[in-house]
Amino acid sequence: MIKQCMLQVKKTAPLIHNITNYVTVNDVANILLACGGSPIMSDEAEDVEDITSICSGLNINIGTLHKTSIEGMFKAGKKANELGHPVLLDPVGAGASTLRTNTALELMRKINLTAIRGNISEIKTLSYGKGTTKGVDADVADTVTEENLKTAIGFVKEFAKESGSIIAVTGAIDLVSDGDTCYVIRNGRPEMGKITGTGCQLSGMMAAYLAANPEERLAAAAASVCVMGLAGEIGWKYMQRGDGNSAYRSRIIDAVYNMTEDELERGAKYEVF
Amino acid sequence: MIKQCMLQVKKTAPLIHNITNYVTVNDVANILLACGGSPIMSDEAEDVEDITSICSGLNINIGTLHKTSIEGMFKAGKKANELGHPVLLDPVGAGASTLRTNTALELMRKINLTAIRGNISEIKTLSYGKGTTKGVDADVADTVTEENLKTAIGFVKEFAKESGSIIAVTGAIDLVSDGDTCYVIRNGRPEMGKITGTGCQLSGMMAAYLAANPEERLAAAAASVCVMGLAGEIGWKYMQRGDGNSAYRSRIIDAVYNMTEDELERGAKYEVF
Amino acid sequence: MIKQCMLQVKKTAPLIHNITNYVTVNDVANILLACGGSPIMSDEAEDVEDITSICSGLNINIGTLHKTSIEGMFKAGKKANELGHPVLLDPVGAGASTLRTNTALELMRKINLTAIRGNISEIKTLSYGKGTTKGVDADVADTVTEENLKTAIGFVKEFAKESGSIIAVTGAIDLVSDGDTCYVIRNGRPEMGKITGTGCQLSGMMAAYLAANPEERLAAAAASVCVMGLAGEIGWKYMQRGDGNSAYRSRIIDAVYNMTEDELERGAKYEVF
Repeated sequence: MIKQCMLQVKKTAPLIHNITNYVTVNDVANILLACGGSPIMSDEAEDVEDITSICSGLNINIGTLHKTSIEGMFKAGKKANELGHPVLLDPVGAGASTLRTNTALELMRKINLTAIRGNISEIKTLSYGKGTTKGVDADVADTVTEENLKTAIGFVKEFAKESGSIIAVTGAIDLVSDGDTCYVIRNGRPEMGKITGTGCQLSGMMAAYLAANPEERLAAAAASVCVMGLAGEIGWKYMQRGDGNSAYRSRIIDAVYNMTEDELERGAKYEVF
Repeated sequence: MIKQCMLQVKKTAPLIHNITNYVTVNDVANILLACGGSPIMSDEAEDVEDITSICSGLNINIGTLHKTSIEGMFKAGKKANELGHPVLLDPVGAGASTLRTNTALELMRKINLTAIRGNISEIKTLSYGKGTTKGVDADVADTVTEENLKTAIGFVKEFAKESGSIIAVTGAIDLVSDGDTCYVIRNGRPEMGKITGTGCQLSGMMAAYLAANPEERLAAAAASVCVMGLAGEIGWKYMQRGDGNSAYRSRIIDAVYNMTEDELERGAKYEVF
Repeated sequence: MIKQCMLQVKKTAPLIHNITNYVTVNDVANILLACGGSPIMSDEAEDVEDITSICSGLNINIGTLHKTSIEGMFKAGKKANELGHPVLLDPVGAGASTLRTNTALELMRKINLTAIRGNISEIKTLSYGKGTTKGVDADVADTVTEENLKTAIGFVKEFAKESGSIIAVTGAIDLVSDGDTCYVIRNGRPEMGKITGTGCQLSGMMAAYLAANPEERLAAAAASVCVMGLAGEIGWKYMQRGDGNSAYRSRIIDAVYNMTEDELERGAKYEVF
């Protein structure tokens, strides 16, 4: 199934509309091309409806919010909903500021979100609502570990059910659930955290996977998480003397570019609960 | 002549004012440095006239339009026209949205554009005017091939004459014309399409070539197209196991950085009609 | 001391709030991660106070000013001052436009700046005030050389005293002074000037060094300058056939990522006056 999802992306080359932060936008564009999709960026309110209309999926990332881009997010989201396109939200920094938390919560209320992908703190902020400006509480922000895995799966399933969106929590262990089923994925390397924007890149790629697999959205979301983690493992094998986080960033995108369906099938480490 | 144009860029190190999209802006800056020019970016309406005044060329790219940057484009364009600086337009996504199409058309009407560089669909949208929000019609959007080359040359010459701008259509085969003469260029590799922003990079570099060669603008524009395509060929030769579109992006800029006039002369593949 | 400053950054992993240009922002983020810090970007006026509050330092860079981001700079700066966080200003292009010069001067008046880092022309513009739109006069803009070193040291010390900020002038020879003492640093390579944003990257890293070393801010600022220059030297050693400015950019960030305290101590070339 995972393998089939990748094949569909390569076959249909979905054009993805990204309203994303200016920090990691270039990497998001290049990883979309690497995985077989195609990127277009537009956040001006006057432009977004036209752009969303020629695309097959929408990726909203709140990493560097501007008042004008917020307006664009709602307009694009509504248009994408009308057209039946998948919409993904990456709530970067939800919990770190009132503007980010409230924007993410309002997007959840007003836009039909196909998937929400974030780290555990961001997702918990959205789940517990009314995030504070100081970020989520430490006890809530517990990383997903083998010890608390059962609880974490329960939380993600519950929130997916409540929200009606696929919830993807990424970290050392990744969880992806639609409320009924939960993928537990163990690909990736800790050094990926030393690169800015691997999460943003995954969100862009997940939007392409969702767009290319309308009948298999949970598997598609999980597949994109496996691709990103496996690319982190493959890219690491190519690291040479003197290489650091900047070379690693490039090698991960390259690994996505070169990955075949068979490699993915062999390398993907996941269980389904 | 092509060789001479490169020499002039390296000798005069033109400072180029870029009002460009936030997706590929870093690559545009680095390729301008690689080719021997120098970049400065500014899109705030209050800032652009001062910045354009200390530069010797202006590169306008509509890849991520904002209402405020549109105002900056017109202000900078007018000032550059007053000062006799070359102005290049890269109409990214013209035909894909009303805002992009209309902004590009209005820039053509109000600013004296030295050159317009885009893909065939974007250029056809500008030529046939009143672009629709759905992109140009498929029959109009035909790629330039050996089969339709004559017609394509005729179209580009005609549009260059009408518009009063050098028209550069880039793709598998590149066409660059001032209305009288048309360069047909066959450098480059198809894998360049898997990197975001090779077109934007070329536009930045073309602006530097135009600025450094005021007496030979058609040759200068064609030279920059040869440099980009040849860099794509040279960069490809350095690709190693595990490399993909991200490494390739870097290798192309590096190839521009290392290219000599003699290499360009030997490697440039063009005919003049 | 230099070595100790690096250790503190790695130990405390300071989160740095960056209001910076969209050209080099990704490199700033990655070099902050490389050096042991952590980046967050936010320029929207409504967002910046919350973000600054969860950080331990603020980096303001005026490379691509927007009216809205200017508002954000003042708000964030005031909040950081209230909280006692170090604030760094990188006055990119001060002297090149009225907006840039005036914004930098107003930031100096209204915000308590811990450090200002720029090239000699930018710093002289701030020192002589009322910069013109044509950039600083040529005679003022003299590069720091072995010949004029004494005068340059005197100028930087004086301006540091007057402004109450640590002044860091970077170029072939780097000067860092708090008004009493002046570090003269001779690390680095001329090819670093062919990469866009090495200055911006250094500013981000310097903010992290200042944040992690509240008791030793002059040494911390000087240490970050040594790290950047030494990374330029180490990165250069890894350059391979075909590499150019793009590969070099990546290798410098990687060198920061891999640099140990002992390497820094052995490689740092500085004198104190």
